[in-house]
Amino acid sequence: MRLYNSAVSGNCYKVRLLAAQLGLPLELVEMDVLDRSDRPEVLGGLNPALRVPTLVLDDGRALGESGAILCYLAEGTPFLPDDRYQRAQVLQWLFFEQYDLEPNIAVARFWLAVSGTPERWAAELPAKQEAGYRTLAAMERHLAEHAFLVGERCTVADIALYGYTNVAEEGGFELGRFPAVEAWLARVAAQPGHIAIDG
Amino acid sequence: MRLYNSAVSGNCYKVRLLAAQLGLPLELVEMDVLDRSDRPEVLGGLNPALRVPTLVLDDGRALGESGAILCYLAEGTPFLPDDRYQRAQVLQWLFFEQYDLEPNIAVARFWLAVSGTPERWAAELPAKQEAGYRTLAAMERHLAEHAFLVGERCTVADIALYGYTNVAEEGGFELGRFPAVEAWLARVAAQPGHIAIDG
Repeated sequence: MRLYNSAVSGNCYKVRLLAAQLGLPLELVEMDVLDRSDRPEVLGGLNPALRVPTLVLDDGRALGESGAILCYLAEGTPFLPDDRYQRAQVLQWLFFEQYDLEPNIAVARFWLAVSGTPERWAAELPAKQEAGYRTLAAMERHLAEHAFLVGERCTVADIALYGYTNVAEEGGFELGRFPAVEAWLARVAAQPGHIAIDG
Repeated sequence: MRLYNSAVSGNCYKVRLLAAQLGLPLELVEMDVLDRSDRPEVLGGLNPALRVPTLVLDDGRALGESGAILCYLAEGTPFLPDDRYQRAQVLQWLFFEQYDLEPNIAVARFWLAVSGTPERWAAELPAKQEAGYRTLAAMERHLAEHAFLVGERCTVADIALYGYTNVAEEGGFELGRFPAVEAWLARVAAQPGHIAIDG
C-alpha cells in the first residue's frame, strides 16, 4: 500500500503507527505541508479533500481521512471492536478528535512548531489554546476512570487521539496539568510495535 | 431512544432524518444552542464534548457525535454498506463533513442565521465562506460523476452531508454555482421517509 504522507503530520503518524503495530508495510510518498501547490495534480481523483494522509490500496483504490483509514486497516483486528456499541464509541472519539482536538491542538502546534512564521498567528493563538485545553480537560475526565478510551483496551480511538496529544507541548500545551492523560499516553506508547512520530 | 436535540442544528437534523427514514421513534429533549450553561449538568457523563446531538439508547448507554450516531443506527441497514471498502468510503465522507463542511458552512450559517449577532462575525466571515466554497467545489467534482456519495445509493454519507448543505444558503452560499450538488440534494430529498429540517 502507498501512503501519501507528511513526516510532521500527526494525522499521517496515526496511520504509520497503526500499520507498524499491525505489521503492514507502507510505501511512503512525502508531501509538503507548506507548499501545497502540487496537491490537485498528485491527490486529485484520490482524495476529495486533497489532504494527507491518503492511502492507496494494492488494487489502486484510494481512501482519505485518517479516521476512515484507521477503521479500514483495523477491521477484523483487536484495534476495532466487534461489538456494535463499542465500535460506535470508537467512532465517537475519532470524530471528537477531528472536531475538537485536531483543529485546536494540531493547528496551534502547526503555527508554533511547523509553519516557520509563529508570529503571524499570535492574535489567533489564545483562542486555539483555550479550546485545546477544554479538549484535554474532557479527555482527562474520561481517562481518570478508564485505562483506554473504549473497552479498556487499545483501539484506533487511542491511536487517533495519541497522534497529536503526544506532541501537544509543541503547541504550547502543558500536559503536566492532566495526569490521567499523561498516564494514558505512556500506556499507548508501551503497546507492542509502537513507533514515535519521528521513528 | 432519547435524543438531546436542537431544532436548528444540522448535526441533530441528520439523526432525526435517518431515524425517520428507518422508522425509529425518538424522544426529543430540546437544548439551547446559544445559552450552553446547562450542558455540564445535562450532558456530563453522556458525551465528553457536551454537545448535541447526544443519543441515549433504551438501556441508558449514551453516544455523542452525529457521525457515530448515524453509523450506530444504520448498522445492518442499506444506509451503511457491508463492503469493507465502501464502509470506509462512507467514513471518509463523514470525516470530510465534520472537518471541511461543518466548521465552515454550518458556522457561517450559525453566525448569519442563528446567532442573532451576525455583525459580530463580519471580519471572520470571508474566510469561512472561501473555505465553504472550496468544500462545495470538492463535492461538485465528485457528484458530477456519481448519483450518491458512495456506491450509487443513499447512505449515511449522503444524510450527513445533506444536513448542512441543504441550508447552506442561510450561510450566504449560492448553491446555483454547483448544479451537481443541487441535483444530488433533490435526489436525497426524494428518498422515502424524508423530512425537512423544520419538519
